[in-house]
Amino acid sequence: MKHIVLAAVFGMLIPVSASAADTPVAPNGIALYPNYMSWRVIAPSYREDRGNIRIITGNETAVAALHAGKNPLPDGSVLAKAAWKSKSHPDFPVATVPGDFVQVEFMVKDAKKYAETGGWGFARFLGNELKPYGKDASFVHECFECHTPVAKNDYLFTHMVKTP
Amino acid sequence: MKHIVLAAVFGMLIPVSASAADTPVAPNGIALYPNYMSWRVIAPSYREDRGNIRIITGNETAVAALHAGKNPLPDGSVLAKAAWKSKSHPDFPVATVPGDFVQVEFMVKDAKKYAETGGWGFARFLGNELKPYGKDASFVHECFECHTPVAKNDYLFTHMVKTP
Repeated sequence: MKHIVLAAVFGMLIPVSASAADTPVAPNGIALYPNYMSWRVIAPSYREDRGNIRIITGNETAVAALHAGKNPLPDGSVLAKAAWKSKSHPDFPVATVPGDFVQVEFMVKDAKKYAETGGWGFARFLGNELKPYGKDASFVHECFECHTPVAKNDYLFTHMVKTP
Repeated sequence: MKHIVLAAVFGMLIPVSASAADTPVAPNGIALYPNYMSWRVIAPSYREDRGNIRIITGNETAVAALHAGKNPLPDGSVLAKAAWKSKSHPDFPVATVPGDFVQVEFMVKDAKKYAETGGWGFARFLGNELKPYGKDASFVHECFECHTPVAKNDYLFTHMVKTP
């Protein structure tokens, strides 16, 4: 009887477990933030060398801190950078617009937990499968190295766009 | 005495009136939507010919309709397109990022009110002064003419970016 009750309980839990299992997790334990496209936009960006057009968004903590000019950003700040293959607009070729999805990257602020990499945890998820980048947790050194030239801006390349 | 009371009342109202008067209004009566940067992002875009990098955002009605694949968009939909002069990132020159603010444009859906221009009302506000574009209400014909090639997409150049 105990087993039947337990089976029923586990049966009820399955949809929740399956849903949690669907969220990709980077080798350093950072899971994809599924709501990044509903966060406020921080800036657009275009990388001609890769042919990628990007949007950087931030959660409420990050956006409020950036608007307030805080540096470094407080713990709990998360930034997302989503990239698409750029293409010419079929009806207006002088405009470069997003095509296929390339990847989404996150920077997660926790000064203590990620002390070795400027207080930031990094994660990248590739393609439509959102495949976690990196063979093991050491992949973050590659991310951090690239962000070192902007250490003075709390390791962020992105600045909040200015509007009147 | 009556005059003194009225003066006091008007005196109290001045800050409110001044605030309302600060919102720029296009010659066709469309006032700037001050919260457009807190709306959800629809897409980034880059115009090499003008050297402008842009973000297109939409209010809740517009974003929900675009996600649902609606065409035409329902009344109440508003899209904003903000443009910045593009520049190379000072610490990472292969990245093109936003510099000075150029303008913000709006498309406001009201199928009946704006029947002559595809159901869309247009407005543009220029520079840090957010100066309304157009000498009189006829400026919308210029906007509409440019959007005619995308009539099949409800006169929108912008498509919702695809994410997995």
